[in-house]
Amino acid sequence: MQITRQRPETRRGAAENFTGTVWLDELAAPPAPSRLRMFNVHFAPGAHTAWHRHPHGQVLHVLEGEGLVQRRGGAVEPIRAGDTVWIEPGEWHWHGAGPRTFMTHLAVVEAAEDGTTADWGAHVTPEDHPA
Amino acid sequence: MQITRQRPETRRGAAENFTGTVWLDELAAPPAPSRLRMFNVHFAPGAHTAWHRHPHGQVLHVLEGEGLVQRRGGAVEPIRAGDTVWIEPGEWHWHGAGPRTFMTHLAVVEAAEDGTTADWGAHVTPEDHPA
Repeated sequence: MQITRQRPETRRGAAENFTGTVWLDELAAPPAPSRLRMFNVHFAPGAHTAWHRHPHGQVLHVLEGEGLVQRRGGAVEPIRAGDTVWIEPGEWHWHGAGPRTFMTHLAVVEAAEDGTTADWGAHVTPEDHPA
Repeated sequence: MQITRQRPETRRGAAENFTGTVWLDELAAPPAPSRLRMFNVHFAPGAHTAWHRHPHGQVLHVLEGEGLVQRRGGAVEPIRAGDTVWIEPGEWHWHGAGPRTFMTHLAVVEAAEDGTTADWGAHVTPEDHPA
């Protein structure tokens, strides 16, 4: 058993993978046979991920605020505290804060055999996301 | 992509597996190849799980309040909002609220090949947990 009371350093979301100000806390990355990777992700208003996909899918659970999520080919959907989102394996998508609202969500993924948790694509453009 | 905005019914923790008043929300149980099972668990003061273990371990992340966790053979450890606990695969343990404090935690496990997520043992006795 391992209890983390003193959080490791919060890190900034890399500019290649995010637009705007994003802060990530890694909550858990246990050793194999577990393949869990769990993060708490804080998005400033207007901040969001680039397009990306996950080999085994992803669960997002909104802890506070209001945000947005979109799968490729789908509408931009509002999400808010208490909502849970399941992203299918291989489904291209992005998520983040609303244009004027902060949003924090948990993000839970399962790593692939080779350790990969995400495959990153292009930044979200104004055409994808008119807000 | 599936967004859950209308939560399914919160259910009571079964008397075989819990002591006291416990409410569970299943947040996610995606189809294979995912093996994730994610719950939000609300413990009234003094409520806690029975002894149990998980085939691939478990992550607990405390969202609010103050609680307790103990692995077999170890001390009763305090946990509070923001703390994260990693329980090893096969490690017998229990967790729950403090004697006088409500506690809510996320619980994330990975199911075994046969779908098992937990193996339940005896209730916690006053000898295990003097409070």
